[in-house]
Amino acid sequence: MTTGAAPQREYTIEEFVLHTEPYYLPLGDEVELFEAAYQQHLPVLLKGPTGCGKTRFIEHMAWRLGRPLTVVKSSDAGASDGTSMPLVTIACHEDLTASDLVGRYLLEPEGTRWMDGPLTRAVKAGAICYLDEVVEARKDTTVLIHPLTDHRRILPVDKLGQVLVAHDQFLLVISYNPGYQSAVKDLKHSTRQRFVALEFTYPGLEAEAAIVERESGCDSETAMALARLGEKIRHLRDHGLQEGVSTRLLIYAGKMIAQGIPARRACEVAVVWALTDDQEVQRSTQEVVFSIFE
Amino acid sequence: MTTGAAPQREYTIEEFVLHTEPYYLPLGDEVELFEAAYQQHLPVLLKGPTGCGKTRFIEHMAWRLGRPLTVVKSSDAGASDGTSMPLVTIACHEDLTASDLVGRYLLEPEGTRWMDGPLTRAVKAGAICYLDEVVEARKDTTVLIHPLTDHRRILPVDKLGQVLVAHDQFLLVISYNPGYQSAVKDLKHSTRQRFVALEFTYPGLEAEAAIVERESGCDSETAMALARLGEKIRHLRDHGLQEGVSTRLLIYAGKMIAQGIPARRACEVAVVWALTDDQEVQRSTQEVVFSIFE
Amino acid sequence: MTTGAAPQREYTIEEFVLHTEPYYLPLGDEVELFEAAYQQHLPVLLKGPTGCGKTRFIEHMAWRLGRPLTVVKSSDAGASDGTSMPLVTIACHEDLTASDLVGRYLLEPEGTRWMDGPLTRAVKAGAICYLDEVVEARKDTTVLIHPLTDHRRILPVDKLGQVLVAHDQFLLVISYNPGYQSAVKDLKHSTRQRFVALEFTYPGLEAEAAIVERESGCDSETAMALARLGEKIRHLRDHGLQEGVSTRLLIYAGKMIAQGIPARRACEVAVVWALTDDQEVQRSTQEVVFSIFE
Amino acid sequence: MTTGAAPQREYTIEEFVLHTEPYYLPLGDEVELFEAAYQQHLPVLLKGPTGCGKTRFIEHMAWRLGRPLTVVKSSDAGASDGTSMPLVTIACHEDLTASDLVGRYLLEPEGTRWMDGPLTRAVKAGAICYLDEVVEARKDTTVLIHPLTDHRRILPVDKLGQVLVAHDQFLLVISYNPGYQSAVKDLKHSTRQRFVALEFTYPGLEAEAAIVERESGCDSETAMALARLGEKIRHLRDHGLQEGVSTRLLIYAGKMIAQGIPARRACEVAVVWALTDDQEVQRSTQEVVFSIFE
Amino acid sequence: MTTGAAPQREYTIEEFVLHTEPYYLPLGDEVELFEAAYQQHLPVLLKGPTGCGKTRFIEHMAWRLGRPLTVVKSSDAGASDGTSMPLVTIACHEDLTASDLVGRYLLEPEGTRWMDGPLTRAVKAGAICYLDEVVEARKDTTVLIHPLTDHRRILPVDKLGQVLVAHDQFLLVISYNPGYQSAVKDLKHSTRQRFVALEFTYPGLEAEAAIVERESGCDSETAMALARLGEKIRHLRDHGLQEGVSTRLLIYAGKMIAQGIPARRACEVAVVWALTDDQEVQRSTQEVVFSIFE
Amino acid sequence: MTTGAAPQREYTIEEFVLHTEPYYLPLGDEVELFEAAYQQHLPVLLKGPTGCGKTRFIEHMAWRLGRPLTVVKSSDAGASDGTSMPLVTIACHEDLTASDLVGRYLLEPEGTRWMDGPLTRAVKAGAICYLDEVVEARKDTTVLIHPLTDHRRILPVDKLGQVLVAHDQFLLVISYNPGYQSAVKDLKHSTRQRFVALEFTYPGLEAEAAIVERESGCDSETAMALARLGEKIRHLRDHGLQEGVSTRLLIYAGKMIAQGIPARRACEVAVVWALTDDQEVQRSTQEVVFSIFE
Repeated sequence: MTTGAAPQREYTIEEFVLHTEPYYLPLGDEVELFEAAYQQHLPVLLKGPTGCGKTRFIEHMAWRLGRPLTVVKSSDAGASDGTSMPLVTIACHEDLTASDLVGRYLLEPEGTRWMDGPLTRAVKAGAICYLDEVVEARKDTTVLIHPLTDHRRILPVDKLGQVLVAHDQFLLVISYNPGYQSAVKDLKHSTRQRFVALEFTYPGLEAEAAIVERESGCDSETAMALARLGEKIRHLRDHGLQEGVSTRLLIYAGKMIAQGIPARRACEVAVVWALTDDQEVQRSTQEVVFSIFE
Repeated sequence: MTTGAAPQREYTIEEFVLHTEPYYLPLGDEVELFEAAYQQHLPVLLKGPTGCGKTRFIEHMAWRLGRPLTVVKSSDAGASDGTSMPLVTIACHEDLTASDLVGRYLLEPEGTRWMDGPLTRAVKAGAICYLDEVVEARKDTTVLIHPLTDHRRILPVDKLGQVLVAHDQFLLVISYNPGYQSAVKDLKHSTRQRFVALEFTYPGLEAEAAIVERESGCDSETAMALARLGEKIRHLRDHGLQEGVSTRLLIYAGKMIAQGIPARRACEVAVVWALTDDQEVQRSTQEVVFSIFE
Repeated sequence: MTTGAAPQREYTIEEFVLHTEPYYLPLGDEVELFEAAYQQHLPVLLKGPTGCGKTRFIEHMAWRLGRPLTVVKSSDAGASDGTSMPLVTIACHEDLTASDLVGRYLLEPEGTRWMDGPLTRAVKAGAICYLDEVVEARKDTTVLIHPLTDHRRILPVDKLGQVLVAHDQFLLVISYNPGYQSAVKDLKHSTRQRFVALEFTYPGLEAEAAIVERESGCDSETAMALARLGEKIRHLRDHGLQEGVSTRLLIYAGKMIAQGIPARRACEVAVVWALTDDQEVQRSTQEVVFSIFE
Repeated sequence: MTTGAAPQREYTIEEFVLHTEPYYLPLGDEVELFEAAYQQHLPVLLKGPTGCGKTRFIEHMAWRLGRPLTVVKSSDAGASDGTSMPLVTIACHEDLTASDLVGRYLLEPEGTRWMDGPLTRAVKAGAICYLDEVVEARKDTTVLIHPLTDHRRILPVDKLGQVLVAHDQFLLVISYNPGYQSAVKDLKHSTRQRFVALEFTYPGLEAEAAIVERESGCDSETAMALARLGEKIRHLRDHGLQEGVSTRLLIYAGKMIAQGIPARRACEVAVVWALTDDQEVQRSTQEVVFSIFE
Repeated sequence: MTTGAAPQREYTIEEFVLHTEPYYLPLGDEVELFEAAYQQHLPVLLKGPTGCGKTRFIEHMAWRLGRPLTVVKSSDAGASDGTSMPLVTIACHEDLTASDLVGRYLLEPEGTRWMDGPLTRAVKAGAICYLDEVVEARKDTTVLIHPLTDHRRILPVDKLGQVLVAHDQFLLVISYNPGYQSAVKDLKHSTRQRFVALEFTYPGLEAEAAIVERESGCDSETAMALARLGEKIRHLRDHGLQEGVSTRLLIYAGKMIAQGIPARRACEVAVVWALTDDQEVQRSTQEVVFSIFE
Repeated sequence: MTTGAAPQREYTIEEFVLHTEPYYLPLGDEVELFEAAYQQHLPVLLKGPTGCGKTRFIEHMAWRLGRPLTVVKSSDAGASDGTSMPLVTIACHEDLTASDLVGRYLLEPEGTRWMDGPLTRAVKAGAICYLDEVVEARKDTTVLIHPLTDHRRILPVDKLGQVLVAHDQFLLVISYNPGYQSAVKDLKHSTRQRFVALEFTYPGLEAEAAIVERESGCDSETAMALARLGEKIRHLRDHGLQEGVSTRLLIYAGKMIAQGIPARRACEVAVVWALTDDQEVQRSTQEVVFSIFE
């Protein structure tokens, strides 16, 4: 129940809460907008590129919206002075079935036993349920969330012959990366017109440097250089690079440098080779690295 | 059995009834037509765009057609003076199997136990069974409803080796959005020529303003502005917008405004970003928002 | 075992018989042809458009070929003076498996128990087995009926390790709508050359008016007007209408009128909107309605 | 074990033998060729169009190769003076799995029980195993028969962890209709180069008349007229008819005539409508009928 | 355990050994190459056309590499003076799953019981495991053999949570026919660069005559004529014949002749009709037959 | 638990460690880079062609990062003076399911029992988990590793309703061959931007000769000739050869030579025939062999 205590390593899905505030640097009014949506029971859609901080944002909001729980005080819990709301994250993919979300019967010595799926657990416990990369999900999954995302706020559990009314604190949040969307994989309007939408992008230069420094443990000069690297590489996107470099990869480079790897080599393995297999694109990315880390 | 009492959160599918009249503003003679079809045992097909009120309409009709039941009086049930007919809603999708509708065997300590599916429950209990977005369903699902939608009104349950004759109050209602239909996903004539059809569209300006005001809790001036926004955006449909904005999204915008978010920002997250990922289309939608909320 | 008594609503598949003669107006010598085929043990194929009466015809033939059974006399059985042959109807679709037809093992407290499928029940009980829209079925289903439809008249039940010889009164009847058939979905010659074929079409003007009047309960003038409507709309088929209007939809219109809905409005919901989503085609159909119901 | 006695209607697959000689009119040296192949343990492939008598031929050969068994004498067994070899017929289709042929585990009160499939039964009992329309089968099915059709004559039963050596009297026979074969559905050379092949076609005029007369019970003049009809219609094949009329359909026409249906009408339902849905082709076929039955 | 004794017809997969030396006429140094690869633990790939003797070769090698086992002496075991190595042959196809090879759980009265698959049995018993037509297998099958075919020689059995180290005598051998390979069905380089490859082709004229004579029992003159027939037909390959005639079919023709069928007729059923359905190609093949058997 | 002792041949997946240092010749700073990434908990991606030593490298790193365990001292363990970290290798393929990685329920006498999959075992035991050829995996597999490869380091086990926090020593390593990647099979950016990337290629001439000599047991002159052969064949890649020859195949050739096979013949079976079925390409490769081994 507490992530601070090292020995405990297994948690019930709906009891998995954070005990220290997740670092998140707001880039605009996204925190206020999310809070307003939450108060009004409006489901939220997060759009944005890979590694720009959507997962961190939702963890941060779960923390902000957290209410006092019966906390097991852990002596080594650091700056923690409370817990987050329970946050149930589900990474969507094309083989995720409705049963994976809602639940299934297990065979037990006394016959079958019903096992709630993560969505059902979130609906009952009043958690934030976060469906990551929702456009990857199959139709039966997207349709399943319809009655949870309009005025009904119900979840039919057909295999139990039941209808569940969602806990008052429950909220559904979904995300995807619009840069990817092909024509075949898109949210249907009957799905997307059920969500208030927030658009995310990479942070600005100063903000990204601050994030890289804090997360990687490198010095502030290196962090600023890496942020500049990120900005420049993102401008290469028209030159064959499918997607800009994520803040996460810049943090990786910072960590390698902090570990003693020379900056140019660190950027090669954490940025250049990580981004692409195309030798041409690797060469232009390399040049950007060399222009910054001389 | 009563949705008014907060603690009760799980209902048997066929006992899920409404205890307060669902708000619905009739836009024509749709109520009379539905009642005539119901009296004659004629299955009904609802056509119309996303979020125009089809689900609300069917809830309203279930309420109107409701007969006195043995109601558990709940002190906080507000304006409720009765209950609706039981309403079994099934969101269709391409992985919905016939077994999901009709039922399946579960393994129990004393061997297998049969579990009625939602359609079978509706057929037996005399509920309205509402198959939402029926064109998404697989062939075995659409074929399954054939003997229920002609003079036979029977449901073969092959896995039980049985034939069920439908309860006299049972009615099958299906819906879909004709705007979506591709050539591959269409109701076969052998299916569609079994239904009386009602076509829905977005409400007129005055009606939509009334609905937005009542549902969002914003003031009447804002509601009228949002209704005008809806009207104008729907005219953009020829300019790259796949589907007009739903009344539901206008209500979302109203709720964000009622929560204290500035109108332009509320419309951005609830309408502009929610509708589309196309930056060009976002810009023209944005302009419409700015022209109304100056 | 009797459909006249209201409380009884569940029947064993092979015991489902009719107790009142189903109304059917013969349009030619189809009754004599079917009887000759039945005497000779020749399987029958019914071809024809949606809602032209194929299901009603096979019910009628089951009634005519019915022999005295040990009837449970029900006091309210009306004009009934006997019962039909048992009639097992199976709506084919692309997910119907051979096991759905032949049977499967169920797990019981004393181990697995075999459950005969509807085809096996019909083969054993000597019923008419009617496979509706057989071209929708998968290959394993069509191949399954081969040894039942030549001189062998046997059904191999591989999962039991058995071969069943069909009851002498058993007959297999299949149907489909040739208007639909695409190149990919067609009966293979090795299947179709096992059946005597009867072609059905819509009834003539007088016959259709008689059917509509009797089935809908509207007056004879309205019935004739609806029959004329049907005839005219079927001529529109070259103008974008995929399939003509079925007699069933005309009966629906008659029922709505009998319920008090104005004729033009009744035809709009039961015919115009029911037939098509294409606005152009709706307009031309509408004009036909207006020319008849002025 | 005897098909003559009416009450017995269920047989174990490998005990299903014929008790009266199946009528078969040899059209060449096919009987001698098959016997030679059988003596040499050479698997046999039968090629030929629908309804030309391949099934009857293999029944006839099973009869000829039959040895005295412990026959349960049935008083009403007519002309029977022995029994056929056991004949296991399997109609192939694209959903037939290897398990369907080889066997599977069933759950029983004392745990799982192995159930031999029809191929395994034939291999053990020394039956003729006839795989009808083998090109329709999936790859795992065709590959399964490889070790049974070379010098090894073994059947690996992987789920039992066993290898079975075939009974000395076992023979595998397969059939297909070369007229159908598309490029995608063809026997691989590694399969087809394991069989001696016999090609079948429709019988000549005199032979076909003799067969129709004997099988349908019509008079000899009608039978000859039907044989001429068959010959003429097969010449139409270049004019839009996918496949010629089978002897079986001519027998159907004869049976309808014997039952009292006028010849032209009998040919319409048993030949014209049965062969095709194409109105043009129906008309030319009709003309052939009218030219013969004036 | 002994194939000489007639009554015994079922063997455990890994105990299936040969008791008489399989006839094989070496056509080059293939025997020495295989022995060298076996000593070095190098997996072997056999390439070659249908019916050219790959299966016979691997049986022969299993015999040569066989070591003394505790043989159950059978009095009628003829020329046998030992046994072969155990040889586990698996015919690959696109529905063969990893579980089919590795093993699966069976349900037993005392719960599930693990059942080793044929590959696992071979790995444990130190058999030669021969995957015939490996390119037909699914990806999960080909990937499964990777750790068995490099320096690791291990088989992960995930369902047991185990890793097996192969028996020292174990060797994996695969085969395929390069003539077939389409672009889509090809061994990936990460698979094929794990094998030493031996290429096979049809035997020369003298060798083939010797093989046909010995295997079919026909006289030496006929055998030479059949070998010449084979050579000539293989030259037709550019004229529409997909694949040359296999030695196996020539042996079939020899057997039919030995059984008393005239040579031309024997070649027609065993070669001409067996090879192709194309009438044109049949005619040219026929001409070759006639030119040899005048 | 010890691979040195011959009798022990089965290991629990997470206990499978190496007891002797795996031979690996570093070609650059790849060892230092991997160690830095490991210290920083950064997941690693290995890119490179077939058979260039990726598997050997990861075994080597597991050895280097190995800590003292409670080793069962085996007398014959040779140069071993410790053990490697546990290394869980999973060969990815398109039929690998999430359950194959995470675990599944097994049916036991006392009901179902959960069985951890290899990924779960690695997460709990703190092993290096190596997903080989990760682009072959299905979407549900790649998505599954997302929360393990960012700051969360958790593995949701939905079927247990649990969330696992990874052991501190756990690291995920993936590999693929960029030469293969088609457009359809590529790592999504949301996956690939979670890894630090190391690019591998074939070793230089001297290094490869050293490796071939040590691994094959051939003399140093032959080893150098084989290394030169490898270098030359890789230059042929533009001339129809899909992929260069792997170091592994050169070692195979060395082993065949060490076994007494003439060099040219050894190169034919281990290189020429093993690399390709294209006769043209075989000929040019042959020429290279002849130019080196005269």
